[in-house]
Amino acid sequence: MDKNKGELSLIRFIRKRFPIRRKEILKGIGDDAMVFQNGFVVSTDSFFENIHFDLKYFSMYALGYHTMAASLSDLAAMGALPVCCLVSLHLTKNIGVKEIEQLYNGFEKMAKKYEFDIAGGDIVTSPGFGMTMTVIGRARKSLMRSGAKPGQALFITNFLGLAEVGRSVLKYNLPQKEYQDAVSKHLFPEPRIAEAQFIKQYATSCIDTSDGLSTDAIHLAEESRVKIVIDSEHIPIHSEVGEFCSIKKIDPLQFILSAGEDFELLFTARRLPKISRLKIFKIGRVMKGRGVYISVRGKEKRIEATGYEHLL
Amino acid sequence: MDKNKGELSLIRFIRKRFPIRRKEILKGIGDDAMVFQNGFVVSTDSFFENIHFDLKYFSMYALGYHTMAASLSDLAAMGALPVCCLVSLHLTKNIGVKEIEQLYNGFEKMAKKYEFDIAGGDIVTSPGFGMTMTVIGRARKSLMRSGAKPGQALFITNFLGLAEVGRSVLKYNLPQKEYQDAVSKHLFPEPRIAEAQFIKQYATSCIDTSDGLSTDAIHLAEESRVKIVIDSEHIPIHSEVGEFCSIKKIDPLQFILSAGEDFELLFTARRLPKISRLKIFKIGRVMKGRGVYISVRGKEKRIEATGYEHLL
Repeated sequence: MDKNKGELSLIRFIRKRFPIRRKEILKGIGDDAMVFQNGFVVSTDSFFENIHFDLKYFSMYALGYHTMAASLSDLAAMGALPVCCLVSLHLTKNIGVKEIEQLYNGFEKMAKKYEFDIAGGDIVTSPGFGMTMTVIGRARKSLMRSGAKPGQALFITNFLGLAEVGRSVLKYNLPQKEYQDAVSKHLFPEPRIAEAQFIKQYATSCIDTSDGLSTDAIHLAEESRVKIVIDSEHIPIHSEVGEFCSIKKIDPLQFILSAGEDFELLFTARRLPKISRLKIFKIGRVMKGRGVYISVRGKEKRIEATGYEHLL
Repeated sequence: MDKNKGELSLIRFIRKRFPIRRKEILKGIGDDAMVFQNGFVVSTDSFFENIHFDLKYFSMYALGYHTMAASLSDLAAMGALPVCCLVSLHLTKNIGVKEIEQLYNGFEKMAKKYEFDIAGGDIVTSPGFGMTMTVIGRARKSLMRSGAKPGQALFITNFLGLAEVGRSVLKYNLPQKEYQDAVSKHLFPEPRIAEAQFIKQYATSCIDTSDGLSTDAIHLAEESRVKIVIDSEHIPIHSEVGEFCSIKKIDPLQFILSAGEDFELLFTARRLPKISRLKIFKIGRVMKGRGVYISVRGKEKRIEATGYEHLL
């Protein structure tokens, strides 16, 4: 999920402090999920009211859908198919049985669509309403963040920035009619489970865009120990994102670099065959070196993790 | 973890609503952990400040030790050995890097003692300080709650009620010197991982005592579809529990029936060989029928789930 710089340095500290010792663990901290030798893939994500979601415009059904989709997105990024989910509910007194039923309607929609089980969890009283989802999936071979090689290309599924536009529209009560794709993207994001099954035949590394293009590209570059150049001219801009940025007088490129929670797949591959069924854009290149650069009219500029810090 | 009645009925609703469909899942909701066909065992537990722990007397080190032990206890109850843990930190502004380091010292102590890895997790800003731990273990054959048969005996490892005495002593600032075992039991409980490896050769069903003897015995009886009779005369009373109840003028039997978080193993077996290495007490019998009864001077009285509801 969304991380700020303090959290990222904390994760680095924990990772250094706790190197993986058990042979049955292929990958611990440092990817979208941990990976077992037997193909199991496990990820955990927490969500709290007024930090990760706003009940002013989230129905409990949408909340169940959204949080499950966000959690499954980590499995998609690993090229895994979901097997089950454990839900830890963090409850406050104002959340009644009816609300919980609607929340589980949202979970159920996802469970049916992606054919996995709600198989356990925990229910506790909490100082704030929220939930922690542990999703377990399986992949014969996992897609890691660490396989990008110089000479390969950088791809993205679909458009970026839509979810953050949707969030702003809902939060600041802008006219929803003109931002239907954006609003739907924020409330009902779709984990790219099916897309991952296709691209994993070709992809050398992959991450889901939860923290924003710049931060997520930096994760890929760091874990793969390569330099990534994003070609600004190749970043597709959805009309609603263009419209929003124009009204708000923001540079759409800057907006897309830092807007998170689109849950698209950012991945590298030598090349991809043409497929009309999926929307995939080539937006950059992998090179020798380190760091992430944005190329604007032929000029490369290094970018830092602007991250997605709406939680701060 | 500790459950009140509303939470238990909610769990029943979710369990009914989401029956397990995937073949690779042997056991979903309704035991201490979920169980996969490949031997993996997964459990998740959440803890929040002022609900599940009090930082007035918990050092961050003790908190790390306590929460990890409580989480591992679910693996012990299944007869599983821990493989790894994913920690989701729910952070507030008053928790600094130093505190988190000390918390991880507590986790590390457990990870070294029981040889598992801290392999992932999540860090988010939260309305209250807490954490959700997902522990993953492995067992060739899991110990379930559901195997008790009429004619078998009911056993408990060690004493009950100590942790709750310790909690009261710390909370109400009673003289700690006279309650050293109790205080240590609340701050630094021990998951019965090793004991489980021994008893699983003989046990037919098992649960850890996190909710209190009455509630946990009811879980065993319900899942096994049997009647359980607890012989009050056979319940061992630790001197500190006896002393505490005598001062507070509480019936020690009632106290032990409802005091939770001892994280001992309550299990059934046809019989056990004598072993001097472990403290195990025979405290009851399994019979045909339903429900849990306490036998006092030959008279059986049905007991309801008094539960462990200090969180309410």
